[in-house]
Amino acid sequence: MKSRAAVAFAAGQPLQVVEIDVEPPRAGEVLVRITHTGVCHTDAFTLSGEDPEGLFPVVLGHEGAGVVVEVGEGVTSLQPGDHVIPLYTAECRECKFCLSGKTNLCQKVRATQGRGLMPDGTSRLSYQGRMLHHYMGTSTFSEYTVVPEISLAKIHPEAPHEKVCLLGCGVTTGIGAVHNTAKVKPGDTVAVFGLGGIGLAVIQGARQARAGRVIGIDTNPGKFELARQMGATDVVNPRDHARPIQDVIVEMTDGGVDFSFECIGNVDVMRSALECCHKGWGESVIIGVAGAGQEIRTRPFQLVTGRVWRGSAFGGVKGRTQLPGMVEQAMRGEIELDPFVTHTLPLERINEAFELMHAGESIRTVIHFD
Amino acid sequence: MKSRAAVAFAAGQPLQVVEIDVEPPRAGEVLVRITHTGVCHTDAFTLSGEDPEGLFPVVLGHEGAGVVVEVGEGVTSLQPGDHVIPLYTAECRECKFCLSGKTNLCQKVRATQGRGLMPDGTSRLSYQGRMLHHYMGTSTFSEYTVVPEISLAKIHPEAPHEKVCLLGCGVTTGIGAVHNTAKVKPGDTVAVFGLGGIGLAVIQGARQARAGRVIGIDTNPGKFELARQMGATDVVNPRDHARPIQDVIVEMTDGGVDFSFECIGNVDVMRSALECCHKGWGESVIIGVAGAGQEIRTRPFQLVTGRVWRGSAFGGVKGRTQLPGMVEQAMRGEIELDPFVTHTLPLERINEAFELMHAGESIRTVIHFD
Repeated sequence: MKSRAAVAFAAGQPLQVVEIDVEPPRAGEVLVRITHTGVCHTDAFTLSGEDPEGLFPVVLGHEGAGVVVEVGEGVTSLQPGDHVIPLYTAECRECKFCLSGKTNLCQKVRATQGRGLMPDGTSRLSYQGRMLHHYMGTSTFSEYTVVPEISLAKIHPEAPHEKVCLLGCGVTTGIGAVHNTAKVKPGDTVAVFGLGGIGLAVIQGARQARAGRVIGIDTNPGKFELARQMGATDVVNPRDHARPIQDVIVEMTDGGVDFSFECIGNVDVMRSALECCHKGWGESVIIGVAGAGQEIRTRPFQLVTGRVWRGSAFGGVKGRTQLPGMVEQAMRGEIELDPFVTHTLPLERINEAFELMHAGESIRTVIHFD
Repeated sequence: MKSRAAVAFAAGQPLQVVEIDVEPPRAGEVLVRITHTGVCHTDAFTLSGEDPEGLFPVVLGHEGAGVVVEVGEGVTSLQPGDHVIPLYTAECRECKFCLSGKTNLCQKVRATQGRGLMPDGTSRLSYQGRMLHHYMGTSTFSEYTVVPEISLAKIHPEAPHEKVCLLGCGVTTGIGAVHNTAKVKPGDTVAVFGLGGIGLAVIQGARQARAGRVIGIDTNPGKFELARQMGATDVVNPRDHARPIQDVIVEMTDGGVDFSFECIGNVDVMRSALECCHKGWGESVIIGVAGAGQEIRTRPFQLVTGRVWRGSAFGGVKGRTQLPGMVEQAMRGEIELDPFVTHTLPLERINEAFELMHAGESIRTVIHFD
């Protein structure tokens, strides 16, 4: 079938909105009509060419919501008409990882997904006879996309797609990191480095967890008002201080924070985030994705004296099991999505979403296909 | 009073066994007659001059056992005749750290201890009128030493000092790191980097925790037999492999270990220890003390994909509360100390203990004062 899609033909070039061909779903696969998709920094990172695993040509997009159109052979958990959020972190419920009870990092389709292909090693997407790569197993920048059954969370049929699409990545990542990875408790002190979509979601999660003090940190003071609205009790601009930001935070908090979150992808900030943690028990969670080959570093004494360094992917959330509940939380207002959606654009104007992001003017632009 | 002591007059020189002067205990302090003391790598590290916080002249030693001789004003928890193990990690039971329930890193006497002094900022030790520094709050290389009350664990009066002195540092650090820091569970796979005293204690702790597989790693194959006796199920010499040792361990364990422990103090090994952990949940614990200014590093992706980097000091053990129980475990044979004591020497021959350690011929040499 034909589908409108924004295609990244090459690194560093704007997307082109064209009509691509989408093959029907094969065994274990599902054809989904995407209604809305967010545009995330990770899409921009891959498009820039800095992602060493980036493949072109490709249909980007991984923060979407849609409706099942057709299911392939053997698909039992979904049927046409079901509302879904595509998952870049699948949940097969049968691999060693899914069965461990310790991680959400299902590895069932990891290898092919990383190569931009469906689990059988081929693509369902093409343009004028030329194969297009899938992206993160989701490719939500196409109106019609094919996704493995195990990479789809079935959500409430009345969920507002134009908002809950953000639970496909950023908001879930931030809120989940607070609850699943860090396990913030009432009264804890929290530092959030980077006040983009993820950082704001962390702040929202910290408020849900009834953290006592939530410190938002960004070099762009334009982010501070929204951070405060979301629940930040303090905001700090590192540029206002001559000292290293970790020293500033340690002093502000009489010894350091209980939890810090790096939501940027900057390895130097990751170090600051660790080192602003309280001696004896502070834990730092890396959420941001660093550039290729970059390394974090610190003195081991930081860890020997009780700090803990962790990371989080998709907020530790098991998509098929936990995301439907988060969608319902959003429908009840327990997760606030409205403040994240600063812009809405039709597919044809998707390149403007990237421009708004790079200019630091948007939190999230939601693209609609109708 | 006079006391025989092995004094480090300057970095890089052998200790000199001389008669020093020891002042009586002041308020909150206790005079202890040390009967036995282990010689640990940390003593050697400070003696070498590589420890940037090393102070000279100094009475080293921090792994001892002894008997209370006299208590200073206000001391209520100890009286003359009590058997004790000096603690380089105090437990005041009233500072923020002690009350947190999250760490054993009491900070009450930290600052003065780090400056080689008693809590009132002075020293009780001198030689021919010249002040000698205390070391780690313990200075167990002197027959008589003065220690803060909060830095003494009162132990069973029948405990064999010539063995339980090792619970003052190495054995407790290793066993404690398994139970308190890592919390190893039955069936877990464990990798132990470095098979000295700490590493062997980790292996013993892993066996107590009923770990399924315990892999000992050392470049000195002379350490393997004892490691197997202690409970290692596999031993690996990195020099037998052309590939990075983390790749070898990941392959051996079908994806990596549940827990790894670095018991050397080598920042490159710390990286290997982290990277041999299983994606999704593996945790690495740094126990070894690295040289001044050295840094650990890795790609943040290692953490984002679920590995956790921690450290442990004194095995997370609260000395006054937990050490007496460990002494009794040792008395019942639940902690085996005999295999650690490879050599026994009188104080006068203490320099031989350092030579044996540097030659890799000893696990622990225990010094006796009688």
